[in-house]
Amino acid sequence: MQRTVFFISDSTGITAETIGNSILAQFEGVRFDKHRLPFIDDAAKAEAATLRIKTHYAKSGERPIVVNTMADRALCDIVAASGALMLDVFAPFIGPLEAELGTKRSGAVNRSHGLVDFDKYEARINATNYALSHDDGIDVDYAQADLILVGVSRSGKTPTCLYMALHYGVSAANYPLTDEDLEKLELPARLRPYRDRLFGLTIEPVRLAQIREQRRAGSRYATIKQCRWELEQADRLMRQAGIPSLNTTHVSIEEIASKIFASFGIERTMY
Amino acid sequence: MQRTVFFISDSTGITAETIGNSILAQFEGVRFDKHRLPFIDDAAKAEAATLRIKTHYAKSGERPIVVNTMADRALCDIVAASGALMLDVFAPFIGPLEAELGTKRSGAVNRSHGLVDFDKYEARINATNYALSHDDGIDVDYAQADLILVGVSRSGKTPTCLYMALHYGVSAANYPLTDEDLEKLELPARLRPYRDRLFGLTIEPVRLAQIREQRRAGSRYATIKQCRWELEQADRLMRQAGIPSLNTTHVSIEEIASKIFASFGIERTMY
Repeated sequence: MQRTVFFISDSTGITAETIGNSILAQFEGVRFDKHRLPFIDDAAKAEAATLRIKTHYAKSGERPIVVNTMADRALCDIVAASGALMLDVFAPFIGPLEAELGTKRSGAVNRSHGLVDFDKYEARINATNYALSHDDGIDVDYAQADLILVGVSRSGKTPTCLYMALHYGVSAANYPLTDEDLEKLELPARLRPYRDRLFGLTIEPVRLAQIREQRRAGSRYATIKQCRWELEQADRLMRQAGIPSLNTTHVSIEEIASKIFASFGIERTMY
Repeated sequence: MQRTVFFISDSTGITAETIGNSILAQFEGVRFDKHRLPFIDDAAKAEAATLRIKTHYAKSGERPIVVNTMADRALCDIVAASGALMLDVFAPFIGPLEAELGTKRSGAVNRSHGLVDFDKYEARINATNYALSHDDGIDVDYAQADLILVGVSRSGKTPTCLYMALHYGVSAANYPLTDEDLEKLELPARLRPYRDRLFGLTIEPVRLAQIREQRRAGSRYATIKQCRWELEQADRLMRQAGIPSLNTTHVSIEEIASKIFASFGIERTMY
């Protein structure tokens, strides 16, 4: 079974898509063909979106599903005329919140991904620059790091650092364990002062070998033997040094970041 | 007025937080003190969360608000016993979808940020590596780029490229206009074959000067005069070359990315 879904928003569409994906993931037997229609903020754009949905409906014979975060009721009505199943993301929550807070919702709606707070923006950008300049041991000053990811090459440190910086403004540095560290089974001296900020990333050897093979085909670096050795030594080193760690093989970047924050008791909310 | 909000999830909490922030942003007069409680997936953790919420309630005298994406009804009931206002993110949508699709939702719930699809993961990682190695004109092969951001130094190109890569698997390169380009008012030769993939970022001169001043205090690079000149020339160059552009001063990274995708007709959905 396949059904078409439109995420419609008067802004970026990120909220519609995030909640829509979460809801749809609960129907595992159905394949969803997903489309994002952002910035639908006037009648002409709503009419164009409606036409597209209607055309799809007529062609496929299946009723499309619309996940909607548009605020303007008039625009919602235009899209509803397409005959699609309308799921309005905000409607169920506004009433209870208005009652609880004793106030009506204000005009500025659905701008959560549009508004810019310069301080927060700066925190994100500064953290991103920090992650870029403290990636793979290029820069050695870890004093400013909120946390430092440790692991063998290609265990997922860089994307995790960038994600934490871009979304949470967390300054995460990144130290790739060298063959020397792994042979000695010793933390390098410059990491030792920051032991309570270290977190290890591990990965299954077969998966690591695949990733490295893509990167440097046929190299010793990509052999399963080398990967296995590095990972075993890294594991030993982390246990000896008391560094908490996470196997990233089956875990998304979002979940890795959440688990690291949970481990450090960081409750920072997203920007 | 200030109210405390808990985002509770049996997984990362990203969905709860995303929709929660969108809903709360509609109540502009209220300050919300936000806490994320992820990975609440057994009774003991739910009890601990409940205790925390109750303690908060007793201390502040104000009823806390819970934005909940836990799937297990038993866990929801434990948290509801705290007396908080429970906003269940999925409940309102499951009924209508079950009716529409003629199928019950499956057991695997709320894993949208936890599941890993290796192909998609690889696309994200490869795009991130692409963005890192094609940042600020370091690497010159633009043939593989989905799109190329053009702008003066510190106009927001790098974080935007990284965001598009991490979230959408879009391979975005990044070309900083040099003084030479700006004097000649000419696109560099190596960008010309890819004119239809170029997108310009601009920014207000005062804001650019602030950002640059943070970076290199007291430099000529950070003077308002230099910023103004570069931005005027960049604007001219983009208009002459027919490159679409966006002023990023008041726009979040999420919105910049969405607008660029809309401009190119890219409807790629998030990972």
